[in-house]
Amino acid sequence: MSTVKLWTDDEVALHPRVKAVFDDIRATRQSDFVNNMWRALANQPDLLEATWARLKQVMTVPSALDPLTKELVYLAISTANSCTYCVHSHTAAARAKGMTDAQHQDFLAVIGMAMQTNALATAMQVPVDPEFQV
Amino acid sequence: MSTVKLWTDDEVALHPRVKAVFDDIRATRQSDFVNNMWRALANQPDLLEATWARLKQVMTVPSALDPLTKELVYLAISTANSCTYCVHSHTAAARAKGMTDAQHQDFLAVIGMAMQTNALATAMQVPVDPEFQV
Amino acid sequence: MSTVKLWTDDEVALHPRVKAVFDDIRATRQSDFVNNMWRALANQPDLLEATWARLKQVMTVPSALDPLTKELVYLAISTANSCTYCVHSHTAAARAKGMTDAQHQDFLAVIGMAMQTNALATAMQVPVDPEFQV
Amino acid sequence: MSTVKLWTDDEVALHPRVKAVFDDIRATRQSDFVNNMWRALANQPDLLEATWARLKQVMTVPSALDPLTKELVYLAISTANSCTYCVHSHTAAARAKGMTDAQHQDFLAVIGMAMQTNALATAMQVPVDPEFQV
Amino acid sequence: MSTVKLWTDDEVALHPRVKAVFDDIRATRQSDFVNNMWRALANQPDLLEATWARLKQVMTVPSALDPLTKELVYLAISTANSCTYCVHSHTAAARAKGMTDAQHQDFLAVIGMAMQTNALATAMQVPVDPEFQV
Amino acid sequence: MSTVKLWTDDEVALHPRVKAVFDDIRATRQSDFVNNMWRALANQPDLLEATWARLKQVMTVPSALDPLTKELVYLAISTANSCTYCVHSHTAAARAKGMTDAQHQDFLAVIGMAMQTNALATAMQVPVDPEFQV
Repeated sequence: MSTVKLWTDDEVALHPRVKAVFDDIRATRQSDFVNNMWRALANQPDLLEATWARLKQVMTVPSALDPLTKELVYLAISTANSCTYCVHSHTAAARAKGMTDAQHQDFLAVIGMAMQTNALATAMQVPVDPEFQV
Repeated sequence: MSTVKLWTDDEVALHPRVKAVFDDIRATRQSDFVNNMWRALANQPDLLEATWARLKQVMTVPSALDPLTKELVYLAISTANSCTYCVHSHTAAARAKGMTDAQHQDFLAVIGMAMQTNALATAMQVPVDPEFQV
Repeated sequence: MSTVKLWTDDEVALHPRVKAVFDDIRATRQSDFVNNMWRALANQPDLLEATWARLKQVMTVPSALDPLTKELVYLAISTANSCTYCVHSHTAAARAKGMTDAQHQDFLAVIGMAMQTNALATAMQVPVDPEFQV
Repeated sequence: MSTVKLWTDDEVALHPRVKAVFDDIRATRQSDFVNNMWRALANQPDLLEATWARLKQVMTVPSALDPLTKELVYLAISTANSCTYCVHSHTAAARAKGMTDAQHQDFLAVIGMAMQTNALATAMQVPVDPEFQV
Repeated sequence: MSTVKLWTDDEVALHPRVKAVFDDIRATRQSDFVNNMWRALANQPDLLEATWARLKQVMTVPSALDPLTKELVYLAISTANSCTYCVHSHTAAARAKGMTDAQHQDFLAVIGMAMQTNALATAMQVPVDPEFQV
Repeated sequence: MSTVKLWTDDEVALHPRVKAVFDDIRATRQSDFVNNMWRALANQPDLLEATWARLKQVMTVPSALDPLTKELVYLAISTANSCTYCVHSHTAAARAKGMTDAQHQDFLAVIGMAMQTNALATAMQVPVDPEFQV
């Protein structure tokens, strides 16, 4: 259960600002499926517009990092934040962008390693080497 | 300041197990520089050996993800965990593996986006779409 | 499912220390509803008493911050900690204390912004300006 | 030390896009002081523009929550994320927006309480009460 | 629902590397029950082997800390990370290793206290006392 | 630098409520040293009293878990929360309560293992086994 209402397509159709965002999501992704994140954000049209505009810019416009790398970075943050919804949606997105099982295994190995050494560095309060300075 | 002693090369030289790990770090990285993380772990030879063996396997053996992608995933976790040492060491490592300024900007944009939508999904407790199911 | 038993009112009635806390929760909130958090804490009477006594002091006694502001701060922490139960209970509490939909949207926008800039400041390891010093 | 260069005003003056953002920060805040966060973001003009535009919208335009409440929510997230820079900058901002010592004490008491009950609810995996459902 | 397939015993039986790990889990724990964590990791045989080998070493070989203390430290980390699965599995493991209700109450009181003072120390940015230096 | 003033003993001497807490800290710990955490909390006498009273109860009164185990649980939480001050103060406290180097190595190994499997369980969204149910 969510803490806000999830909007159905019928409800979206009655609200022009929300409908415009949903239309753009469908056009950008070339799919009729609009996931629950946007159906929850529909309650806050300003936030919906700002979030989608920024996500579209960051994640769908070609840029210096390839789409799969960006998804894996997104998924790493989502895992560290224990965000159930985000882990599901971005694992699915990574697969849709071509993540293989071998790449998934690699990803899992790296996040496991990172979490482990993060804890060790923090517990030992290791001082930053001057060599790492910009 | 650290919560454990940082071992100098002179101290390492007197401890065969620790020296063997330091030698392997230098050989693997083809550099004489051994960063403070390992000088702190030297106090715990079992943990030093296990951590280096796994890190070497995960981060230096060619695998399904390229080295820079793995560094960016590592850096994303380190940032989400607010690990000062790790952010410094893995930003430096990403640059050493070819990260450009444009890629760094992309990386920062993605982690900012992920953190933001993680909070929104959690605060609204968005239910996982059945479409994301394996 | 929980990792501890949830106490029913019948079970509470048989345990004077637990019953005294439940009675005080009902009297303080002027409601017969006692939520599951307290039914779980009932297994640990010392912790139950200490937690309720402190929560009652911090959240129900009039103080320098108004009740809704305190709830929103509570909800922000709960979101950052990915505490499902807490997000639900404190969103409900914020609504009960008058949070409007517009205020909820504002709240969501602020936590999204904060999460984003937290990640950026950490990833760039921005040094604290001397101007911020007390 | 930071992982990116901090731009001086002289460097900013040579870069029109960055200068435009710095000018707007100064005009919006009616202060000549531009804190290090923006001097770090200056390395990534796209991200600088997007971050400032959104922060200005969320934090400076009058909205449903008053400015101090928004700062306290921001500070709560920053604390939960252990973001040193953000804790300093947003504590200073809260004081600039009128936070009294009594309100600071209240804030600290609430975040302490929230952190504590978050851990208890998570450790006991308390199920969400149906009464909290929307 | 999980983001990867959970392997049944029939599927495990057909994959020698996975079967060897499952056999060792059963032999080490002297129980036929293999929990879902390993059925999920079975998709990544390298990671399965590495994770089990390390977990077996750290958690089942007699060492300087007794088994219950190690479980409680494990459970504390799992709680701070809001890992639902881990909280359940390590609470069960702590009970299997003899945790009494009184010890559970103690554990909950300590993690609540720690979370609270962590937030206070971070929000006040308390400087480390020179007396704590190694 | 801290976000609040740190009280000197001379300032404490002028404020009876604060002085009473400092006197009790010194008497309870049988040491003249009062660490910075309390010098920061001195700005908020209510919070100072409540925090010390609860810490004294939880951490110094003999209970079901021995003092070192409680310190290690406290330190695990502090590490997961990336609380620099807390990692320093509770590592020092664990040593004062008898933690050996071998126990410290064990502790570090366990938190590293826990962080790693927490990330794996979250990334794979492993469903809780019915066998773990209370």
